[in-house]
Amino acid sequence: MSMDTDPQPQGDDRDDDAYVLDPKTVTAILYAVEIRDAARLSELMAPLHAADIADLLEQINAFDRSRLVRLYEGEFDGDILSELDDSVREDVMSLLQPSTLAEAVRELDSDDVVDLVEDLAEPQQEAILDVLPVQDRIAVRQALSYPETSAGRLMQREVVMAPEHWTVGEAIDHLRNSDHLPEQFYHVVLVNPRMHPVAQVTLGRLMGAPRATPLAEITEEVFQIIPVTQDEEDVAYAFNQYHLISAPVVDDDGRLVGVITIDDAMIVLDAEHEEDMLHMAGVTESSLSDRAIDTSKARLPWLGVNLCAAILSSLVIAQFEDVIAAFVALAVLMPIVASMGGNAATQTLTVAVRALATKDLTPANVMRVIRREVLVGLLNGIIFAVVMGIIGMVWFGLPQLGLIIGAAIVINMVIAGLVGTAVPVILDRFGADPALASGTFVTMTTDMMGFFAFLGLAAVVLL
Amino acid sequence: MSMDTDPQPQGDDRDDDAYVLDPKTVTAILYAVEIRDAARLSELMAPLHAADIADLLEQINAFDRSRLVRLYEGEFDGDILSELDDSVREDVMSLLQPSTLAEAVRELDSDDVVDLVEDLAEPQQEAILDVLPVQDRIAVRQALSYPETSAGRLMQREVVMAPEHWTVGEAIDHLRNSDHLPEQFYHVVLVNPRMHPVAQVTLGRLMGAPRATPLAEITEEVFQIIPVTQDEEDVAYAFNQYHLISAPVVDDDGRLVGVITIDDAMIVLDAEHEEDMLHMAGVTESSLSDRAIDTSKARLPWLGVNLCAAILSSLVIAQFEDVIAAFVALAVLMPIVASMGGNAATQTLTVAVRALATKDLTPANVMRVIRREVLVGLLNGIIFAVVMGIIGMVWFGLPQLGLIIGAAIVINMVIAGLVGTAVPVILDRFGADPALASGTFVTMTTDMMGFFAFLGLAAVVLL
Repeated sequence: MSMDTDPQPQGDDRDDDAYVLDPKTVTAILYAVEIRDAARLSELMAPLHAADIADLLEQINAFDRSRLVRLYEGEFDGDILSELDDSVREDVMSLLQPSTLAEAVRELDSDDVVDLVEDLAEPQQEAILDVLPVQDRIAVRQALSYPETSAGRLMQREVVMAPEHWTVGEAIDHLRNSDHLPEQFYHVVLVNPRMHPVAQVTLGRLMGAPRATPLAEITEEVFQIIPVTQDEEDVAYAFNQYHLISAPVVDDDGRLVGVITIDDAMIVLDAEHEEDMLHMAGVTESSLSDRAIDTSKARLPWLGVNLCAAILSSLVIAQFEDVIAAFVALAVLMPIVASMGGNAATQTLTVAVRALATKDLTPANVMRVIRREVLVGLLNGIIFAVVMGIIGMVWFGLPQLGLIIGAAIVINMVIAGLVGTAVPVILDRFGADPALASGTFVTMTTDMMGFFAFLGLAAVVLL
Repeated sequence: MSMDTDPQPQGDDRDDDAYVLDPKTVTAILYAVEIRDAARLSELMAPLHAADIADLLEQINAFDRSRLVRLYEGEFDGDILSELDDSVREDVMSLLQPSTLAEAVRELDSDDVVDLVEDLAEPQQEAILDVLPVQDRIAVRQALSYPETSAGRLMQREVVMAPEHWTVGEAIDHLRNSDHLPEQFYHVVLVNPRMHPVAQVTLGRLMGAPRATPLAEITEEVFQIIPVTQDEEDVAYAFNQYHLISAPVVDDDGRLVGVITIDDAMIVLDAEHEEDMLHMAGVTESSLSDRAIDTSKARLPWLGVNLCAAILSSLVIAQFEDVIAAFVALAVLMPIVASMGGNAATQTLTVAVRALATKDLTPANVMRVIRREVLVGLLNGIIFAVVMGIIGMVWFGLPQLGLIIGAAIVINMVIAGLVGTAVPVILDRFGADPALASGTFVTMTTDMMGFFAFLGLAAVVLL
């Protein structure tokens, strides 16, 4: 059993980057690859966790990556594959000899194999499943039969369970006589005769309780059962909300079929956060190691949507060419009205998207939140209206211009508060992702309304 | 020992909101509060987890909240306080009778008390500490002596440990004879005679191994030691990166002083994500239950920064009043150039901020990522330049106008790729939060450069 007790982070004085791959190590590794020194490479890679090696492979360029993988092939660990980003993973898998790949996959737990193969094309998937022992292959195929992003794909099938009427002593003896305990488990799930989970007991409590204690007396207070078809998003929410460490998974008949542990839930939660953040900016699934042409393609659609939104704003401006021709100052000031509204809307939108994700924004408080956001828009709108009104008046010496820009800012910031909250809430209500598209739609609205309010008021007052 | 085995989410057919507080329950609870029916309220609240009750208290208005807390006071659980948002928490604490509050606080683990009191003013902090048993009070004071957001604030002081030379049998006997095992623990930490942690053993493995096995032979492969002064952000990163469940915490001399578990790390990770997302939009710490006036104040600073940025853009436009007066079409089209640049920059920026947070963007690949983003800007810029060039030409019948807007879009989208990556990287290098301010600064740059490139080219070509 190898033991990695090197307290690496302690020796590191750069607090801020305590765990990041040391640039010196990266340079040394790339040099070893350059001079094809396999022994030195092994030595440098030995202290690294599989997750760090995966990060390294993602960060170096494709040429170095292929040379590194070939040189390190003899020691290539299956866990590295699990930790890799999808885009780099396929690349690395194609670099490995079939025998190395088979060996690497055989080392993995069945839920990690599922993660590895679920995005592969059929023939590649089959090639990998073929190298697995029969039992694992069945487990992986079973998991793949559950819908994508369901609890069934996340769970481990190995569950440690005990009949609900057992005592602590019986459970301990049973565990100590089991041949095949999972590598990581934290609870014993109590089941009734129909194999329905009824409670769970932590190993710590099991250790601490007298042998004669019935298990039913030391069960955990918080106990959540996860249906196998539940979406992974809801699974992650439950782990986060109820501070779960592991939870039993049941089939449609309520029978225990597996267990999900917090590390799996944490990965989902992390992916959700990433998705929310990227979607708000109109970026879809991506990786830093994607090629420029792929990144370019991935970003085109939202830029296209944005172009259409921008053209709509231009059409609004085009309606007021006369008044702009008469007062060029309007062209100078109009982006300010749009920008303040866009900024206020983005603030509101971000808070709303986040609150929807954490289920803090619900039917119980949505009207109050919208009212509050509109009020915030009004308050801040008035403040900036005064500031900008004075600036506009002094700058261009036209008192009416100050009034116009002030009024337009108030109007646009109130609209920002309204659409910034209402748009994500409505998208969510209709089952769409509240983050996706909200940003573009909301700023399109504040741009158009900003130009319309400002130029429209100007046309009425100045012409 | 109470046991909550109600498999509530299973009975719920709205997949999408499997765990959210049911609006019907909320209505029923508020009705019970309205008619002051304490028995009915208890009945409705009984199946709810403390985290759900906290969510409920955050979602209802202040008046209902105070009536609910007073009616429910007799059964108020300490965990509800731990789960509440800071803003609502102080409000709720002030509603409780001192005796109820004391009882609620006494129920909590010392790390939860730390979380509860760390943001309170001195006298309130003292009042709460006074109700604790002496030993807990010392533990809380000790924790408060560590820097804010350090590992010392997160850790539990109760650690289950064993000398490194023990066997499985010795460890099990010791655990079974201990009076005070922590409620939740997952590992036994092995220490050397100087109390330095050297490895850890999971309870599952301890259960499964023969009694004569030395503990040193069944230690976990992945083992990370956390310095007590390490920032919680780095702690959360380590848990996420290395899939840790718990990790020992050591003082400056390397002696074991506590343990951090994954649930604490998960809360930090969640807060980090929230912070990144909000900071990018120029929103600081906030809660949906804040009052409008507080929210307004919190958002003013960034709106102020944005106003300055918008005025700078206006100053750029003001330099070209002549050419705009001659060709009003420029005023109509100029927001498109700025908007496309701003959108491309936000896409790039979001990817960069996220990659910095996950430590995927490092000195090893930063130059390659910047080159790629600039190339993506160039590629997409050319595509939209062609589209917009044609539209501009057809719309206004001026072929030069098509060329000018096309060229300006290419220039601005290349700049977007550059500043979208470089700004967060530079902020990060100087120890600032790459999310904070990036958004405003980056879009200010693309606004100014967009107007400058478009109007500048127009002045040269058209005048």
